Amino acid sequence: MIASITTSHETPRVIRMHAADNVAIVVNDLGLPAGTELPDGPVLLEHVPQGHKVALTDIAKGAAVRRYDVIIGHAAADLAAGSWVNERRLVMPPAPGLEGLPLATHPAVMDAPLDGYTFEGFRNADGSVGTRNLLAITTTVQCVSGVVEHAVRRIRAELLPKYPNVDDVLGIEHIYGCGVAIDVPDAEIPIRTLRNIARNPNFGGGTMVVSLGCEKLQPERLLPGPSAYDLVTLQDPAHVGFEAMITSIMTTAEQHLARLDRRRRETCPASDLVVGMQCGGSDAFSGVTANPALGFASDLLVRAGATVMFSENTEVRDGIAQLTARAATPDVARAIIEELGWYDRYLARGQADRSANTTPGNKKGGLSNIVEKAMGSIVKSGSAPIAGVVRPGERAKVKGLLYAATPASDFVCGTLQLAAGMTLHVFTTGRGTPYGLAAVPVIKVATRTDLARRWHDLMDVDAGRIATGEASIADLGWEMFHTYLDVASGRRRTCAERLRLHNSLALFNPAPIT
Amino acid sequence: MIASITTSHETPRVIRMHAADNVAIVVNDLGLPAGTELPDGPVLLEHVPQGHKVALTDIAKGAAVRRYDVIIGHAAADLAAGSWVNERRLVMPPAPGLEGLPLATHPAVMDAPLDGYTFEGFRNADGSVGTRNLLAITTTVQCVSGVVEHAVRRIRAELLPKYPNVDDVLGIEHIYGCGVAIDVPDAEIPIRTLRNIARNPNFGGGTMVVSLGCEKLQPERLLPGPSAYDLVTLQDPAHVGFEAMITSIMTTAEQHLARLDRRRRETCPASDLVVGMQCGGSDAFSGVTANPALGFASDLLVRAGATVMFSENTEVRDGIAQLTARAATPDVARAIIEELGWYDRYLARGQADRSANTTPGNKKGGLSNIVEKAMGSIVKSGSAPIAGVVRPGERAKVKGLLYAATPASDFVCGTLQLAAGMTLHVFTTGRGTPYGLAAVPVIKVATRTDLARRWHDLMDVDAGRIATGEASIADLGWEMFHTYLDVASGRRRTCAERLRLHNSLALFNPAPIT
Repeated sequence: MIASITTSHETPRVIRMHAADNVAIVVNDLGLPAGTELPDGPVLLEHVPQGHKVALTDIAKGAAVRRYDVIIGHAAADLAAGSWVNERRLVMPPAPGLEGLPLATHPAVMDAPLDGYTFEGFRNADGSVGTRNLLAITTTVQCVSGVVEHAVRRIRAELLPKYPNVDDVLGIEHIYGCGVAIDVPDAEIPIRTLRNIARNPNFGGGTMVVSLGCEKLQPERLLPGPSAYDLVTLQDPAHVGFEAMITSIMTTAEQHLARLDRRRRETCPASDLVVGMQCGGSDAFSGVTANPALGFASDLLVRAGATVMFSENTEVRDGIAQLTARAATPDVARAIIEELGWYDRYLARGQADRSANTTPGNKKGGLSNIVEKAMGSIVKSGSAPIAGVVRPGERAKVKGLLYAATPASDFVCGTLQLAAGMTLHVFTTGRGTPYGLAAVPVIKVATRTDLARRWHDLMDVDAGRIATGEASIADLGWEMFHTYLDVASGRRRTCAERLRLHNSLALFNPAPIT
Repeated sequence: MIASITTSHETPRVIRMHAADNVAIVVNDLGLPAGTELPDGPVLLEHVPQGHKVALTDIAKGAAVRRYDVIIGHAAADLAAGSWVNERRLVMPPAPGLEGLPLATHPAVMDAPLDGYTFEGFRNADGSVGTRNLLAITTTVQCVSGVVEHAVRRIRAELLPKYPNVDDVLGIEHIYGCGVAIDVPDAEIPIRTLRNIARNPNFGGGTMVVSLGCEKLQPERLLPGPSAYDLVTLQDPAHVGFEAMITSIMTTAEQHLARLDRRRRETCPASDLVVGMQCGGSDAFSGVTANPALGFASDLLVRAGATVMFSENTEVRDGIAQLTARAATPDVARAIIEELGWYDRYLARGQADRSANTTPGNKKGGLSNIVEKAMGSIVKSGSAPIAGVVRPGERAKVKGLLYAATPASDFVCGTLQLAAGMTLHVFTTGRGTPYGLAAVPVIKVATRTDLARRWHDLMDVDAGRIATGEASIADLGWEMFHTYLDVASGRRRTCAERLRLHNSLALFNPAPIT
């Protein structure tokens, strides 16, 4: 995928992603000063910071600027070879239309299936396999969260030590459940999200719910049908005083702990893995090092029969034609178009569009706009055919590479991937984030060695070795694949697990609050 | 305000709010069975549960059903005297229009000012007065919250004991800051909310911020202008490893703790209080006992020169004409209309309207619809002229009775009242909620004695004594007023403080996430 890298540590280093590109990005930690002569290119006319683009040829005003062999914008003014190409010098193209897109015209033919790869997981009655053995306490409404937090602390201190095969206990807390327009169509998204999170394979199948009693999201609405769950209702007249509520929660929790404690890891095929991929705090290296490595590993997962999801609507919107062409069937392609169209309308309702994505940090890191960011984000998905689309809050129904249609917000995306059944999370970052979730291990991958070095106990993998030439994308892809199996098996704990760094869940609620 | 109460414990008890009402609500804990003869009324034709309405006269299909001398609906079928009047037997009237409303036509003339009432508070340099002495760590983005939580635990354990005049330390955590459409007009609401929360009087004036570095909500955007704050940026290149981040936060925190520790309570006039009123988990007694007592106390606060806020857009919408008539000036009346009109459009954008309010618990508790609920909610505001309107996320600028235009969601309303400068929170509940906030003491008032008895360590005040005739509204109003002064002074701790029950903040973000 990378057309050229200059690798010597002494010389200026730039990366051009494709032979047709007319820009390359600067690798050197401190950027490159004016006057620097690039190995196969022009002399820099000005200082270009690390991760930023330099014009390899003269680019006339209005002419296309290409990276990843994609037009990421048009020159806002004449850009001489050796110029710094940044967001102020680029005019972003309009979003591609949703009509006339290719439907499953180019699904890749994958290499031979990968057999024999396994991990040690906790198999559930429904066939799903967890990577951790956790007691999750589902809540129907935020009103109960102070009480549940108190109970969780007590359970962790007083009960958990008696059940050594259970990894931890957590409250599924959120700010939904009441004070929301619960009968409008969009309300289905947060409700099914909570429902499917309760069913996450890492929680061992049994469900325990704490409800207030008078809330809009009644337990039978959250978990309809015949599915059994143990319920503690704080407004239950039997509760006299706070301690009675805590005792109820702890008594119910202990039954679940006893059941969970009997579970043992068993050898499972890699096809039982459900990996969610995400990036956050991205820079120009995200699309060069970490994300391509994830893409390589994603193809390995697909060949091993596993489920692997990529997401982030605004970060694929500009590459929609690639996605619909790669869809396994026209129906999958149409589902992609439908979800991204719905999201266009959601943004428009709030007077926003895809360009609301890209942060100050993205731009500082060299990403000029959402088109460039999107191209670097999509490479996480590798080359496999897209086997299905997971609508927000739904659980994944098929294996293979899936597009989970979520906002790009790290927390909202992570929460929705959790609902989709994710049991292992991989997160690439260029600027650095301490992101973690209580429900699944999160493997964090640094796009640059500098970050991996500084955040040595927060970053699990250094993908910067690709930029420096120490490792190939394939090397790192295989390393990621083995890391997935090791972390899933509990043989390796992630940095976020070791430090117990957990972010709150963030439900996607497109409906009004009331 | 109450037209008649039957008070004997042996006899059937019902409450009619106004002589013109054709329904009354049942007081008896177990409801009243068919065949019960009401003291001044009909014989019950069927069982009527506690808090539910009984028809006092024959009401023809289509005729008005009046409670609080307000039409809460029209009979869906003929209702004979002695019938149970519930939500299925009522047709809700449409929302009143926003045109032609009375503008400041009936602002009340208040009784003489109340002088000489004081509390012991922490005075700030800007003149505001806190009721607690807290170190708040403002965060720009959810990415940092795992690290901040870790730091807060360490600060509480290792530093706080050295600074005995500081009550506690808390992280101002939220799910905003990135992955949001931050440049659309509605984004101003969550941003100014966070900005004004950082300035809450309980935090002593100095501000400490933890930022990631690359997020959309940059510190200088959160806190623009000359206001000084101490900043820790996790992506600061000086941070090598997790422990370095924790050390930075703790070092900065210690400077703030040392400053806060020098503060002492001093005697302040009651006019320095800023009280936020709210109700949640309401029942038919909310508008009969607890909320009228708050209304009485609200008038006392106004007469003492304090600031007192009521809120909950959907719960005042049906009483808008009362509010605009009570406005102190036509400009205030117009501001009320503007805010409620904006909120109508916000709900309509999501295909909802005011009727999205009312929960299963409200209905079980006897509240048939939002009109009935609203009438019981508005009485919290007493009779004072409405001196101003606080837009969501803004800080209150004038004293007196203010309408803080917020959604009714307990957590969103509480968060916005916190931004408005609230230093004391009072919360009435009929069904019961363990609600609490870390930033301000929350006084919880039970509408029924039964709840107060069962939740003896969760409810601070029993307003059910009004329904049983043990106390008058005035008695309880004065008791509330003195409770405010005691709790504000730190002489009395609330149940939620003693149990350390804290709900998360919930930002009101009407803009899309991305």
